[in-house]
Amino acid sequence: MENEIKIFSPATVANVACGFDVLGFCLDTIGDEMVIRKTEEKGIRITKIEGYDLPFEAEKNVAGVSALAMYKDLKPDCGFEIEIYKKIKPGSGIGSSSASAAGSVFGMNALLGYPLDKTKLTYFAMKGEALASQCEHADNLAPAIFGGFTLVKSANPLQILELPTPSDLYATLIHPQIEIKTSESRAILPKEIPLSNAIAQWANVGSLVHALHTSDYDLIKDALNDVVIEPYRKQLIPHFDAVKNAALKAGALGCAISGSGPSIFMLSKGKAVAEAVEEAIKNVYSETAIAFETYVSKINTEGIQVL
Amino acid sequence: MENEIKIFSPATVANVACGFDVLGFCLDTIGDEMVIRKTEEKGIRITKIEGYDLPFEAEKNVAGVSALAMYKDLKPDCGFEIEIYKKIKPGSGIGSSSASAAGSVFGMNALLGYPLDKTKLTYFAMKGEALASQCEHADNLAPAIFGGFTLVKSANPLQILELPTPSDLYATLIHPQIEIKTSESRAILPKEIPLSNAIAQWANVGSLVHALHTSDYDLIKDALNDVVIEPYRKQLIPHFDAVKNAALKAGALGCAISGSGPSIFMLSKGKAVAEAVEEAIKNVYSETAIAFETYVSKINTEGIQVL
Repeated sequence: MENEIKIFSPATVANVACGFDVLGFCLDTIGDEMVIRKTEEKGIRITKIEGYDLPFEAEKNVAGVSALAMYKDLKPDCGFEIEIYKKIKPGSGIGSSSASAAGSVFGMNALLGYPLDKTKLTYFAMKGEALASQCEHADNLAPAIFGGFTLVKSANPLQILELPTPSDLYATLIHPQIEIKTSESRAILPKEIPLSNAIAQWANVGSLVHALHTSDYDLIKDALNDVVIEPYRKQLIPHFDAVKNAALKAGALGCAISGSGPSIFMLSKGKAVAEAVEEAIKNVYSETAIAFETYVSKINTEGIQVL
Repeated sequence: MENEIKIFSPATVANVACGFDVLGFCLDTIGDEMVIRKTEEKGIRITKIEGYDLPFEAEKNVAGVSALAMYKDLKPDCGFEIEIYKKIKPGSGIGSSSASAAGSVFGMNALLGYPLDKTKLTYFAMKGEALASQCEHADNLAPAIFGGFTLVKSANPLQILELPTPSDLYATLIHPQIEIKTSESRAILPKEIPLSNAIAQWANVGSLVHALHTSDYDLIKDALNDVVIEPYRKQLIPHFDAVKNAALKAGALGCAISGSGPSIFMLSKGKAVAEAVEEAIKNVYSETAIAFETYVSKINTEGIQVL
């Protein structure tokens, strides 16, 4: 058995317009790299962090916290070193903390000969995610670990569904380089919502799941509509409406906030459309004073990959 | 072309636990019979009604109103007579008015050589349904016309999705012979619901759609859960909790209010379980002073049938 593994831990998009707190999908071209190494010395040590300034103490680092949770449960006869090559900017809304939290437990599980299934890995990763977001949720972790589209049926007990991914689906993303505080993006949400909006939203969730099963791109387009969360959270993202209008005009099937933002994602049929959408949203943001990054990515059906 | 057609117009279950206002499925053994006849004399005439005391004037009868709506739109060079052999008790919560409203337009469409698709038939049937329920909705009409499980993605524009039906799924129903006023079952619902409940509900709707696609009976069981409507409406149905407990104990995958009640439906894997569930709920209601009917039915994947 190998003593060291290098992995690609992908960025992810949570919520997917209509599926607040339950739906997510996995990206392909954006993600962290991590090296996990078995050591004779017991315990979890983070030995290298590149890219962003994050804590080395395992108890204060999301990758360390998830690793410790799994380590305490499995009690293996070894320890682990973790190296993190962080490419996903923390706070970008595309699952930066999830990539770290999922990557460490995935790597450890591989080095131990895969004793845990993906749901159990997600369970431990949630402990790390909780450090970053103050609550245990799996809507970014599930797509990172399972790949493709996922539905978190329930968090407790943890139940994750793997949804099919139509083969010609591409994501475009824009990450405006602004900071949205998690506390603010939470506080802005209503505690209660109109029943009529809830009905529209669950019709959309059901339709999107059906559309993924039938590769019905027209229905994906109709279902990618968030009447519950977006009206509140889009206020925190400058030029959201302009980006959305430009993206839809350029042919995107849908456009919505990625996670709690500030990133915005679009889904398109085919790479050419996804790239045209990228051009259109670049044009919108180029006219502002806000720095930004854009990406085009196939949906990653594999999740975390061994390199 | 035939000048007369005899049809079976089935009872249906709307809401299906988690899918309030959007999901429905079609029953097999319970339904009305109707005869639709082409006449040289123009107009729509209801010439026979057996079973229940309903108005003969087309403008006051749901089957007549939907027929008139379609008739005025198509302007055919003939008229139609409608005979209604009503078996589904009005107000039972299993789509009695929908069976009538859908049956007349289905029969007329057949006699005219099928000029309209099923969505357009549902559109006209909604005009009749509105007479009975004071609003245009399609959650019973769609399963009656399309068969199987349906999801009404939106009412305006009307968009109906046909969901797959696992082959071994059976429904059990109990119809307590009490009257619930539609106005009362509406008034009891909250205008706003907690966001957390809405999230649980759309996780269930997405899960149920996935479960139907994958014939995953365990997941059907987990998804058949209504945290939004049932807590309010069950108060209107005597012994609801006792029925539900008995049904689940007897092996039902789930149990919830059919439409706005008073009927209660259960879904089970296999006919034997559905029949055991029927026995269990009969036992509950036999100890009460309330008269009741029970039924076991395969899911009807065809919808309205020509006899």
